[in-house]
Amino acid sequence: MLSQPLLSQRHIHLSSTFRSNAVVNNRQPASTTSRLRFSTKPSTATSSNIPPSPPPPPPKPKHSRLYRAGRALFIVAVGIPVAGTLGWYGYDSLFETPGDILHHKRPRHVIGGPKNLVMTHGCRGSVLKAEEIHQNDPRQRLVILGSGWGAVSVINQLDPKKFHVTVVSPTNYFLFTPLLPSATVGTLELRSLIEPIRRLLSRLGGYYLEGRAEDIDFENQLVEVTGIHDSEGRKFYVPYDKLVIAVGSESMTHGVEGLEHCSFLKSIGDARDIRRKVMENFEKASLPTTTDEERRQLLSFVICGGGPTGVEFAAELYDFLNEDLVGYFPAIPPEEVQVNIIQSAGHILNTYDLKISEMTEKKFQRDNIGIVTNARVVKVNPKSVVYKEKATGKEFEVPFGVCLWSTGVGMTPLVKALVAKLPAGSQSNKHAIETDGYMRVIGTPEGTVYAIGDCATIPQPHFVDKVMNLLQENDTNRDNVLSYAEFQKLAEKIIAKHSILKVFLSHLDKIFEKYDRDHSGTLDMTEIRTFLMDAEKQCTALPATAQVANQQGHYVGKRINVLHDIEQNPEAVAKLPQFAYRHLGSLAYIGGNDAVLDMGKGMVYGGIGSEYLWRSVYFSEQVSIRTRLLLLMDWSKRALFGRDISKF
Amino acid sequence: MLSQPLLSQRHIHLSSTFRSNAVVNNRQPASTTSRLRFSTKPSTATSSNIPPSPPPPPPKPKHSRLYRAGRALFIVAVGIPVAGTLGWYGYDSLFETPGDILHHKRPRHVIGGPKNLVMTHGCRGSVLKAEEIHQNDPRQRLVILGSGWGAVSVINQLDPKKFHVTVVSPTNYFLFTPLLPSATVGTLELRSLIEPIRRLLSRLGGYYLEGRAEDIDFENQLVEVTGIHDSEGRKFYVPYDKLVIAVGSESMTHGVEGLEHCSFLKSIGDARDIRRKVMENFEKASLPTTTDEERRQLLSFVICGGGPTGVEFAAELYDFLNEDLVGYFPAIPPEEVQVNIIQSAGHILNTYDLKISEMTEKKFQRDNIGIVTNARVVKVNPKSVVYKEKATGKEFEVPFGVCLWSTGVGMTPLVKALVAKLPAGSQSNKHAIETDGYMRVIGTPEGTVYAIGDCATIPQPHFVDKVMNLLQENDTNRDNVLSYAEFQKLAEKIIAKHSILKVFLSHLDKIFEKYDRDHSGTLDMTEIRTFLMDAEKQCTALPATAQVANQQGHYVGKRINVLHDIEQNPEAVAKLPQFAYRHLGSLAYIGGNDAVLDMGKGMVYGGIGSEYLWRSVYFSEQVSIRTRLLLLMDWSKRALFGRDISKF
Repeated sequence: MLSQPLLSQRHIHLSSTFRSNAVVNNRQPASTTSRLRFSTKPSTATSSNIPPSPPPPPPKPKHSRLYRAGRALFIVAVGIPVAGTLGWYGYDSLFETPGDILHHKRPRHVIGGPKNLVMTHGCRGSVLKAEEIHQNDPRQRLVILGSGWGAVSVINQLDPKKFHVTVVSPTNYFLFTPLLPSATVGTLELRSLIEPIRRLLSRLGGYYLEGRAEDIDFENQLVEVTGIHDSEGRKFYVPYDKLVIAVGSESMTHGVEGLEHCSFLKSIGDARDIRRKVMENFEKASLPTTTDEERRQLLSFVICGGGPTGVEFAAELYDFLNEDLVGYFPAIPPEEVQVNIIQSAGHILNTYDLKISEMTEKKFQRDNIGIVTNARVVKVNPKSVVYKEKATGKEFEVPFGVCLWSTGVGMTPLVKALVAKLPAGSQSNKHAIETDGYMRVIGTPEGTVYAIGDCATIPQPHFVDKVMNLLQENDTNRDNVLSYAEFQKLAEKIIAKHSILKVFLSHLDKIFEKYDRDHSGTLDMTEIRTFLMDAEKQCTALPATAQVANQQGHYVGKRINVLHDIEQNPEAVAKLPQFAYRHLGSLAYIGGNDAVLDMGKGMVYGGIGSEYLWRSVYFSEQVSIRTRLLLLMDWSKRALFGRDISKF
Repeated sequence: MLSQPLLSQRHIHLSSTFRSNAVVNNRQPASTTSRLRFSTKPSTATSSNIPPSPPPPPPKPKHSRLYRAGRALFIVAVGIPVAGTLGWYGYDSLFETPGDILHHKRPRHVIGGPKNLVMTHGCRGSVLKAEEIHQNDPRQRLVILGSGWGAVSVINQLDPKKFHVTVVSPTNYFLFTPLLPSATVGTLELRSLIEPIRRLLSRLGGYYLEGRAEDIDFENQLVEVTGIHDSEGRKFYVPYDKLVIAVGSESMTHGVEGLEHCSFLKSIGDARDIRRKVMENFEKASLPTTTDEERRQLLSFVICGGGPTGVEFAAELYDFLNEDLVGYFPAIPPEEVQVNIIQSAGHILNTYDLKISEMTEKKFQRDNIGIVTNARVVKVNPKSVVYKEKATGKEFEVPFGVCLWSTGVGMTPLVKALVAKLPAGSQSNKHAIETDGYMRVIGTPEGTVYAIGDCATIPQPHFVDKVMNLLQENDTNRDNVLSYAEFQKLAEKIIAKHSILKVFLSHLDKIFEKYDRDHSGTLDMTEIRTFLMDAEKQCTALPATAQVANQQGHYVGKRINVLHDIEQNPEAVAKLPQFAYRHLGSLAYIGGNDAVLDMGKGMVYGGIGSEYLWRSVYFSEQVSIRTRLLLLMDWSKRALFGRDISKF
């Protein structure tokens, strides 16, 4: 209300400032004309047709042109945002803004299921039994387990007219995991990385239950849940028509002892613990009673695992030391701070292009970040890590103040239980739930249960021998070679069965040329086998990344939207496409305003502007305008004021 | 680097937009003239002296005036900030910004003092012994215990050329306590309320030690400190020439049992715990397994103490419920949420003007916030509070999910120990360290130790009888009355001894008139006694508020700055003024965009715009530009996106 008049006044004022400024630039008498223009009467006709009397000598401007130009610019750049802000505050202070009241019906609960538990579906009592819902309501009951990348990606695709959505998860927010390393030293605020799941659900009118799924009754379509703070451990059922399992993963232990002394970096709590430890160690190291040995231990940061998380944490630590520590902790000589990465493979970032690994290693060498490759951690003591060089078998001990463990992902208890309980033979993978190409969990009643993200995997196909046999049997013209037309047909069939190969087989003419080594215009059986083996290699398990979970969630969300309408028509259902992963590139921040980007196919980038590129990618991937704005604010805050060095 | 050209281009573009817009407003042909003004040659002489040829028909504008005005406004309001931001990011991504390296000298420690401990003064080895420092360096060793309002206020006054400053405190940040209630429900971010003490010290080249002062050796001028995370509890000495004790207070227990079940609101950790509990309770209350009784308990918030902290917490809770809860927790009917304040006095905010109390009580009644006055909490059970009505002696039990205890302040262990160890008779107060009017701790070697803030108090003078006796003895003209001139002299003497009365005695003529009840032109002995008793009443102990601590710190900082130069001259020292408190007003936020302001002397304000006034006061009291900007960001975030409802 208040903002309107404020703004328009400001607008007039601005115009006049600009005007008189410009007039002076042209050495015209400024005062009278500029005033005329703002008189209320339209005096234009007279002033433009009658020759003007000789102009009075221009009044000497009180201030220089530069000063006035500066003032005008200042008023525009500062005044308008300030006026807008004040206007908004005025509006905000005059009117209370109550949220929309959705529906405060008393939740209806029934007792039921094989274990006679309370049965609920969020707080909407009317959808507890399948019979009820299908009579009155076209919507299906969709239950999503988890609130990470996969879950949120499903949520964002859903059509609110088709589903009653309930999310069950121990955390009531979505966490933007790729930026978690930035939060450990205070480059970003923890709260800028999260979005409340209740807010994401509000578009769907969906429900959230803060609990942990303990078990799933696939036959009766019930999820067994316990509230995470329920000291009595009471369980309840959440019934579903469709279920999406997106519970993510836990840190892999590799059977190493003493991991309780390590920090992890998977949740907000982890990032906060690391941040507190880092600050605490710097404060401790500044005390006069701390011995030299203690100080070396406190200021030693060991990172087990040279993947993106480990590398980015090292980079953020380096930035923090370089930009903030030296100025504020004068008692700590920067050279006493040690950062070391222990990596089992031959290079850090070994899932990226080799050029990227080398670029990063070179940068880290300049920054005095130690890298130990081809080494395996054998034990973690309370204040030191023991690792073994693979080549020599020698063991080394490194003291640490903070040890980050980020060496891969393992199964959560729920996933372990589910894999064990599914029909024998349906599940064989040791790291995740196996699904078919449509992300449906193998061994569950068809079409009811999907699994996506870190907790799911599509088994790798072995089709070389099978295809070769088929080819020899069906070689209708008995020439033992494939023409281009025949090759095209083969490729289509392969794509239909293994959609993961869609990208690999996108330029058939070039592939044909490549494998036709003798340039005969046809592929003989040896050439075909080489091609098939290369194709099979492309079908590796997808990495446990946010990108994969995101794309799988997107796929499942779209699929069940469509399924809702055509489920009664098996032919139409069969025509729906399989999931196809499209790698959009990998990136990592490596410190000192540098990032590395791997776009695949050897296209890599690092250097000037790369950090900005890195930021843009993550900026565009945010799930809400809120987190976008918060990210911008955080980056600006860091640039203006440095990182916060308070410990709490 | 990048921002300069970007901005100036934008400037030209903007001017032209505004110009053509304004010209159209005056119905003049726009295109040619507006272009002329931007030609580089000064063509003014011709265009103003020669009659213009008939104007060409004005070209039809492509867009409406409104559209163009809107576009111009948009470009100015959005373009400049965006261009500036991009420019800054460009600059920031091209250049690393290492902090200033101060001095990374190895700290020099010696062993000494009565207990043979490590002796340190920050990390500057050269100032460990008084002999060393006074030969080479004019600076005195100033040690400040604490990092709250008093301490920071001293720090901000100090002259870096005069002191080696060391701050000893368990928290390495300054906390803006008055806004803490806003942080409990997420209106403000915790990090926006704090400023690292190391950053505040950097102007002085000062040092910070994260430790707790355990004891003070006043004779040898040594503070005994333990690092707060030192598991071995090693102690060290920090020697001083001047010491400022500003360690604040602890929550007062009033001997009530079961306070371990309560939440407090004195630190960042407290605010975070409350926030987590509030969110946790709402999530728990949304679960289907939670019984009705449990839910009533979880959603009951009890506040013990109706002072500003309690009132503001209630107000913030109300805002949260009203603006955020109803939209996102559909399973919780808002009327099930109960907020109750238990107050021992007859009104809430009883230190404020009665009008303010009544205004607030009326507002809370409208908001369904329960107020129990004249009641005393007798016991706190794990899930309920028992209170007793003072009048009837009846006991009531209220279940709670969160119970806030904010009923006043008590002594910290250090203060208790110091009061006990100071010479007998020098300290008699049970709540704080007694100081003289110059804030010097009574009973310590003169001029070395100051105490300020919550942990200090100036004993209340009792001067009525003394002054009456003196007056009667010295009544030179034996008329038993005081003329105005005599009264003036008396007032001057009183102010010199009790500077706290400076404000009370600022308009002597009016006071004289007021107490001269019989309008005789003189004050008789009865009238004088009435006056003196009223004056004595003004000398009450100062409240334990941020405002008092802030003014005391300011006073001590200025005083020791001056003392540094004149300490050898006792006459000059004696002329330095005593501390005089100047009450600037009290304020409290009471929810729903309302605040109350008590400016003293019955001047109170509440209603439209009061929240904005409340914000402005706190905004202007911030200790750094950083926290100011953060506050603005937080208020904008809350206005745009509501409070964050994530629990972590």
